[in-house]
Amino acid sequence: MTLDTTPGPIWSDDALWLDDFAEGMTFRSGEYEVTEEELVEFATHYDPQGFHLGEEQARGSFFGGLAASGWHTAAITMRLLVTSELRVATGLIGTDITLKWPSATRPGDVLHLEITVDSVSRSASRPNRGSVVFSYDTLNQHGEVRQHTTARVVAWSRPAGA
Amino acid sequence: MTLDTTPGPIWSDDALWLDDFAEGMTFRSGEYEVTEEELVEFATHYDPQGFHLGEEQARGSFFGGLAASGWHTAAITMRLLVTSELRVATGLIGTDITLKWPSATRPGDVLHLEITVDSVSRSASRPNRGSVVFSYDTLNQHGEVRQHTTARVVAWSRPAGA
Repeated sequence: MTLDTTPGPIWSDDALWLDDFAEGMTFRSGEYEVTEEELVEFATHYDPQGFHLGEEQARGSFFGGLAASGWHTAAITMRLLVTSELRVATGLIGTDITLKWPSATRPGDVLHLEITVDSVSRSASRPNRGSVVFSYDTLNQHGEVRQHTTARVVAWSRPAGA
Repeated sequence: MTLDTTPGPIWSDDALWLDDFAEGMTFRSGEYEVTEEELVEFATHYDPQGFHLGEEQARGSFFGGLAASGWHTAAITMRLLVTSELRVATGLIGTDITLKWPSATRPGDVLHLEITVDSVSRSASRPNRGSVVFSYDTLNQHGEVRQHTTARVVAWSRPAGA
């Protein structure tokens, strides 16, 4: 990335720096209820396909009923991540993502995240920076997995005095 | 996926079925202009981090200025894909996605997609269905790549009479 490499603002005193992460750490998010209104509004703008737009159009489709756009599930997942107990000091800046949608989010789903640190690595050439790979499942109130994500997030060592 | 496996509605007469795809085919999308207003509105709801919310908060950050959420770039990319000349007969239903954000979308970016078919595969157990892997770059008006995506999309053989 041809971007400024200085750390950004610190979000909170208990925020975590590169040095604070270790494989196997876990974090949890709050909850987010997905309404039919928001589901249809998002799809109307960003993924206008019949099975995301109305119960009637969705009935004969692959999904057998109204289903959220996977990209809507992804956007909600990001909100849950940003507002979770996982606080990366310089913010959540992802560079490489993999997504799977084993099932589609439905109206009335109450989603939350279960987050794990998969790995931590430090740059050989710039040892004050590195990356943390997180994996997280987006689950509804019945434990059904709506999205599985892995994300490589940039992180910096704690600066002197922070 | 524990979902109905019958094909969904057909979107248009010139839509493409599994049999119609071949490695190396290319498609193009229309354009989408990203306004500062939409950028901030999306981030306020789905990715409320300072560098996505306002020029002033973004100035000292990693991005050096106001930058769109990667998930906003991903949502716009889906709109461009759904409205592009690539018309999958049963709709665009992705199951496995990889994303890279080599640079961040900025206010004033006019985005478009360049889409390629990477591979086509048929299910051994259910030969009337399979999947197509597409890769696509989301580029701005200066040719800067804002997102690189690969997406596995489910597809069916053309039914008798279609």
